[in-house]
Amino acid sequence: MLNRKFFEERDQADPLSCFRAEFSLPDELIYLDGNSLGALPSQVMNRVSRVIEREWGHDLVRSWWDNRWMELPAILGDKIAQLIGAQPGEVIACDSTSVNLFKVLSTALSSSPDRHVILSDRANFPTDLYIASGVISTMGRDVEMRLVGSGELEQQIDSSVAVLFLTHVDFRHGARCDMGHMTRLAHDAGTLVVWDLSHSAGAMPVELNACEVDFAVGCGYKYLNGGPGAPAYVYVAQALQAGVRTPLTGWMGHEAPFDFSTRYAHAAGIRQMLCGSPPILSMAALEVGVDLLLDADLAEVRKKSIQLTSLFMQQVNERCKEHGFTVLTPREANRRGSQVSLAHPHGFEITEAMCHHGVVADFRPPDLLRFGFAPLYTRYTDVWDAVETLHQIMEEGTWDRREGDNRGEGTAR
Amino acid sequence: MLNRKFFEERDQADPLSCFRAEFSLPDELIYLDGNSLGALPSQVMNRVSRVIEREWGHDLVRSWWDNRWMELPAILGDKIAQLIGAQPGEVIACDSTSVNLFKVLSTALSSSPDRHVILSDRANFPTDLYIASGVISTMGRDVEMRLVGSGELEQQIDSSVAVLFLTHVDFRHGARCDMGHMTRLAHDAGTLVVWDLSHSAGAMPVELNACEVDFAVGCGYKYLNGGPGAPAYVYVAQALQAGVRTPLTGWMGHEAPFDFSTRYAHAAGIRQMLCGSPPILSMAALEVGVDLLLDADLAEVRKKSIQLTSLFMQQVNERCKEHGFTVLTPREANRRGSQVSLAHPHGFEITEAMCHHGVVADFRPPDLLRFGFAPLYTRYTDVWDAVETLHQIMEEGTWDRREGDNRGEGTAR
Repeated sequence: MLNRKFFEERDQADPLSCFRAEFSLPDELIYLDGNSLGALPSQVMNRVSRVIEREWGHDLVRSWWDNRWMELPAILGDKIAQLIGAQPGEVIACDSTSVNLFKVLSTALSSSPDRHVILSDRANFPTDLYIASGVISTMGRDVEMRLVGSGELEQQIDSSVAVLFLTHVDFRHGARCDMGHMTRLAHDAGTLVVWDLSHSAGAMPVELNACEVDFAVGCGYKYLNGGPGAPAYVYVAQALQAGVRTPLTGWMGHEAPFDFSTRYAHAAGIRQMLCGSPPILSMAALEVGVDLLLDADLAEVRKKSIQLTSLFMQQVNERCKEHGFTVLTPREANRRGSQVSLAHPHGFEITEAMCHHGVVADFRPPDLLRFGFAPLYTRYTDVWDAVETLHQIMEEGTWDRREGDNRGEGTAR
Repeated sequence: MLNRKFFEERDQADPLSCFRAEFSLPDELIYLDGNSLGALPSQVMNRVSRVIEREWGHDLVRSWWDNRWMELPAILGDKIAQLIGAQPGEVIACDSTSVNLFKVLSTALSSSPDRHVILSDRANFPTDLYIASGVISTMGRDVEMRLVGSGELEQQIDSSVAVLFLTHVDFRHGARCDMGHMTRLAHDAGTLVVWDLSHSAGAMPVELNACEVDFAVGCGYKYLNGGPGAPAYVYVAQALQAGVRTPLTGWMGHEAPFDFSTRYAHAAGIRQMLCGSPPILSMAALEVGVDLLLDADLAEVRKKSIQLTSLFMQQVNERCKEHGFTVLTPREANRRGSQVSLAHPHGFEITEAMCHHGVVADFRPPDLLRFGFAPLYTRYTDVWDAVETLHQIMEEGTWDRREGDNRGEGTAR
């Protein structure tokens, strides 16, 4: 049996421990929901203040040039590229993950006019599936969305499949797909791949180029710590950029936005994925989050992530096993991301009780408790303390409202 | 001949003069570019600080509920509705103007499967035309984009036209379209209308319901003073909301976003126009700008706007007439918006020189100087001082680089 001292020693030996001080987190809180909303980097306030007071308030419209607002999508894209194994000019920050997915799925489907299937995992992130159905509605031809279980994906990849689109790390169970393997299988069948990196980028190295990925999207507000609703990003492999065909042809993607010509002519390269004007305040905050990650060794981030999730699963098994939890996250380290999901019939009430005791996780229907571990700010002692709290709640039964505990309205969603 | 005292007296009598103090503008600056980027409302810093430090930093993920982040698009939409003559539930704030235009044009075209023309003004805002061509590419049938001069629009509206889409106030010359008249003509021919309010909302009352407008979009960063790249908004008339068909089917537009079901089912009402997660920092700033406008009497705003633009044109005619300027903005008050555009063969150099002398206007190729008048913060004396500066520059010839004046790099774009 481990004790708290073991976890304290791990924190002392942690090469990433210095990053904790770069975040503003309430002292009393154990925050295990960075897979939903990343914590606040302390420098965001300074950066956004400068953007508001100096750049907007003082320099005004000239800031589009003098303070490089026009360039922020590309500057941020090139920085994010370093986190996901891409080259400069392959990534750009803009819009939301959903809108960016619309762009790349439109492009991928248009590139394969003789194929009629979009293949995905039935458990893919729902908004990704919604967007795919929206893209299909624009295709002017019969395209089938084929959703199968993750175990059936391999056998379903054939010459009818235009696009295989998957999420790198599953939001429910935290299972990690083998990006290299699945991309190779797709390419062997002449199928394009689109990866959603929302639940992996920032928590581990991602190797888009090495895996020869065609397209990818991801969000800025989870492990990139870019703030609520932060702009997202989109990746198009260099070799495919000449063939982009997004119908979201806005002025920022024009080859000469300030010529104000009547006809659309797309910019060269990744800029053609831009559409409207970027929300600069939110972009500036995202840059601070991304800069922090650029200072970290992503191999160390991954190593710590594996240790945190391993220890959490191990502790839950040891200390809470008689309380009816099922661990749904793969035990094999390279098959999981940076979260642990437990199933429990009273998951909602338990998540609420944890929150009441200062441990923030989240609940997903029907019965999932999700615990996210963000290696830049999650401490080893947080693992111990969170399981200690869980253990205590289960032993005392205080999660059960029928026990007469009056905690008021729940907030753990 | 008027003198500066006349303008000072106008400022003293101005019922809107109190609003100037609600903006942070550099003392020495005459800012006449609010039609491109609105000035900074002083309260933005407080509001955004609170969102960052308290809501993101302290309350973290619970803020989606506890601080109503989930509701911000609808809250802001209902506020903007009051500025544009719409009802609660008809407007929602989200995405960019371009992305929102994609949604409404897709819907409008899908609603008229037996019509094959999108009709617009050749001088419409270019990004609007680009987006229309993108929408057409998704239609799976031949749709013609018919661009004509503004004088030819009326005769071109017939039963082949699915959608008439126009900008309320033209970005080049500041001419204002007769929204009621054009909408009636379109409806008489069974044609739907889409209006872009980017250059009118916030500078004058807009009467979408009274004009029976079908769809509208607009941006948040011009006269709404929402900050650089602020979220935009979209309006769908109540009666048409049941027939919305946007292909941008993201999770925020789902009828139950937190059920995480596999199939998309659109929300009722205007919420179905949402797609991805809203950028909260930028949304919060926009709310401050909109709140300021809600405190103003829009009839007074329009009255002042007309006076400012009239006086500016009159002063330019009186004092700069021998210097080769052509006033392109309509003299008739109800035919113009809140900007004045002058043509001059050396427009670029003159705009730069003005900027160097503390008067910010902007230049649009090939020869346009644009002066925007934002009645909440533009003073009558700004009109006098700007023309005084223009007069002086033209008299002294200091705009002409060949005269040896060395002002360094220009920034007036």
